[in-house]
Amino acid sequence: MLAINLIDKFSKVDGYWKPKIVAEMNGQYVKIAKFKGEFIWHSHAAEDVFFQVVKGQIQIHLRDDIVDLLEGECFVVPKGAEHMPVAHEEAWVMMLEPVSTQQTGEYLTEATVTIEQQEWI
Amino acid sequence: MLAINLIDKFSKVDGYWKPKIVAEMNGQYVKIAKFKGEFIWHSHAAEDVFFQVVKGQIQIHLRDDIVDLLEGECFVVPKGAEHMPVAHEEAWVMMLEPVSTQQTGEYLTEATVTIEQQEWI
Repeated sequence: MLAINLIDKFSKVDGYWKPKIVAEMNGQYVKIAKFKGEFIWHSHAAEDVFFQVVKGQIQIHLRDDIVDLLEGECFVVPKGAEHMPVAHEEAWVMMLEPVSTQQTGEYLTEATVTIEQQEWI
Repeated sequence: MLAINLIDKFSKVDGYWKPKIVAEMNGQYVKIAKFKGEFIWHSHAAEDVFFQVVKGQIQIHLRDDIVDLLEGECFVVPKGAEHMPVAHEEAWVMMLEPVSTQQTGEYLTEATVTIEQQEWI
């Protein structure tokens, strides 16, 4: 069996805000996505989301705060918290969330990549 | 709110195989521990464990395989799989596992750090 090399996985990712699945554990998917620009405000009523910056840096905007994440740093967006991820420059991000979590929470937009569209790489 | 800086957290960790808790998400704890040498063979009947090497490199010995993890690489030990983590040199490792997961599975040894002893840092 082989370890998961995230840098190798990211080399196969095109586009921004397009999550790919790299592993599953205890009902959570481990996903990676490239971020650039502003995502949309959304929340997940019953699901926490774990973020870790693999390369670059991001901000997670909350309604009353902005959390800066440098390379290697992590943050858990608690269930119910409205948030908007932002990357001023391209950043590579690992996320863990339940297998049932929709990318944009309750808001399905044209930009939403549904779970069924989030392929394994 | 502040991001979790794992390197800062590791600077507060003494000893090897002594997990500390840095976050919780969806019933999972995010933990860090310094590894050096061989841990003990064990398994978790109902719980997957996610490993990511933050610094250094480790091996995860399975009964029929050895998985090499370089810095930044990840691996999920599936529920039920007997495994023994090994670090030939000191390595820093992040793990995610259910909040109920005992460090040494069903085997409680003198070396076991029980969940109650795994403090938040």
